[in-house]
Amino acid sequence: MTKIIEGLVKGNVRSLAKAITVVENDRPGKKELLKAVFPQTGNAYLIGITGPPGAGKSTLTDKLITLLRQQGKTVGVIAVDPSSPFSGGAILGDRIRMQQHALDEGVFIRSMATRSHLGGLAKATVDVIHLLDAAGKDVIIVETVGVGQDEVDIVKIAHTTVVVMVPGLGDAIQIAKAGVMEIADIFAVNKADREGADKLVNELRSMLDMATGDWKPDIFQTVAKNDQGIADLLAGIYQHREFVQNAGLDKEKFKSNVQRELCTYLMDGIVELAQACAGYESLVQAIYQKEMTPLEGAEKLFQEMGINNEWLMVGGDNAEKG
Amino acid sequence: MTKIIEGLVKGNVRSLAKAITVVENDRPGKKELLKAVFPQTGNAYLIGITGPPGAGKSTLTDKLITLLRQQGKTVGVIAVDPSSPFSGGAILGDRIRMQQHALDEGVFIRSMATRSHLGGLAKATVDVIHLLDAAGKDVIIVETVGVGQDEVDIVKIAHTTVVVMVPGLGDAIQIAKAGVMEIADIFAVNKADREGADKLVNELRSMLDMATGDWKPDIFQTVAKNDQGIADLLAGIYQHREFVQNAGLDKEKFKSNVQRELCTYLMDGIVELAQACAGYESLVQAIYQKEMTPLEGAEKLFQEMGINNEWLMVGGDNAEKG
Repeated sequence: MTKIIEGLVKGNVRSLAKAITVVENDRPGKKELLKAVFPQTGNAYLIGITGPPGAGKSTLTDKLITLLRQQGKTVGVIAVDPSSPFSGGAILGDRIRMQQHALDEGVFIRSMATRSHLGGLAKATVDVIHLLDAAGKDVIIVETVGVGQDEVDIVKIAHTTVVVMVPGLGDAIQIAKAGVMEIADIFAVNKADREGADKLVNELRSMLDMATGDWKPDIFQTVAKNDQGIADLLAGIYQHREFVQNAGLDKEKFKSNVQRELCTYLMDGIVELAQACAGYESLVQAIYQKEMTPLEGAEKLFQEMGINNEWLMVGGDNAEKG
Repeated sequence: MTKIIEGLVKGNVRSLAKAITVVENDRPGKKELLKAVFPQTGNAYLIGITGPPGAGKSTLTDKLITLLRQQGKTVGVIAVDPSSPFSGGAILGDRIRMQQHALDEGVFIRSMATRSHLGGLAKATVDVIHLLDAAGKDVIIVETVGVGQDEVDIVKIAHTTVVVMVPGLGDAIQIAKAGVMEIADIFAVNKADREGADKLVNELRSMLDMATGDWKPDIFQTVAKNDQGIADLLAGIYQHREFVQNAGLDKEKFKSNVQRELCTYLMDGIVELAQACAGYESLVQAIYQKEMTPLEGAEKLFQEMGINNEWLMVGGDNAEKG
């Protein structure tokens, strides 16, 4: 493990790959590893790229990598794919086209399957971000499919979030419905050579006109497969980075990330502890038989774990605590 | 509160509405309310309806309600919409067309905004399902947008999950990418009068041919706005219900739902308890200064809360515990 850690902080690709495997699979040494790298984190710039399936996110990411490499920046990419029983894991699909970077030591790409357990994906992603960060990557891109809670969680971590839209997948109301308006720092209307691109841009613009806040998201038209608009998009990302850094938002974000991580460990820990309690199974059975509510069950477990029961008096009623 | 509870279990609409408001807004009395209704739950059949924005889920739900009402069944609907800073909450949009049911006492429809806090949506949805269930609704439909973790969590609760697809939003590979294959019990290819419907059905069918498992998802073609295919779809849902009940999956699901709820209360509780600890803020600061990792911080908080530290020895390394 010491060797892996030493190699990783020097940016060694094989050490990095080994470290990610340890973290992803919850292998022994994970704790030691994350502890060792933590002081080396917080230096990379994190870009989130999200949008519906078929929007061309992978192609866009691919072109951004090329451009970032031309500028001498090292890049880490985490591509988050939903798991599928048909593929037995992440669907690699069009990731393959990213393989042009496979021989470039300055680029590290990792596909991650979504996990079905609570908060699993976000947590594993954060851990891998830490590893890429500690390995000295200048920019880390997290590419996610969809617009669910997992995406929102991952996006919260990113300094700049690019929402990729594409003409023909629906109008602006549907975009709003998809819940992406509030997470976008920048919009990329990809496949902009298709019919309806201008209409989509206009719809987005009129929705953004209603937006309040210090940052007004920019809209960029791209045709990723032809390399069109990528340089402008990256310039837009840099502009947002300047805004973020001037406003001190990167520091705020690091602090809230740290808190979120802390809470995740607390939550994982308490569930593990509860399930290890001798009375856990019979308690679940009692709830199943409706002799007890889930909340009462939780209270009982807290008691068994010897936690002071001040919370129990008000549990479930946030309003009473003011 | 007693009056609300009494009215609710009798199926009184106004009591139900008040109870939902209490639960959604974490008002005082929530705990008492959920405790009182819990023994009355577990009777409703839960249908999850999910799919991309623009697939026509609301229209489909609307038509299913009409049909269920004709069969004399009472229906509860929870429409989960992403919140938007532009709407200040759930976007009602096409829910409005569901208002034809507004005067029908046998139908109760509620829109819920997604919450940004961890697990918030799934938890609030479960609570509202309990209320609708206790109020005697025969069928509860949960309609969700998107395919993220929240959706997966909600879908896990449902007895039958209908995934609504629509021609022109992408091919079968994209469907697989969207992560919906593993959650679908039934597919509805809506707007089936559009070009590409047959192609989509064929693609779905060939993907399903690879599926293993005791239940093979059916595919139904619907044109919800013209009431086409709705009766067949509902018959398909009933068929799946029979399968679920014969296999005892409904009981298994109730048990796993109960456990999931229990864990959510544990997780919420531990975070509340930790944040109430005197040392919490300085501990976050120490992590922020990289003097301590988030995991070490969590361990320290567990210690402060007087939790036995057996977990601490192995924390973060699941593999070591075998």
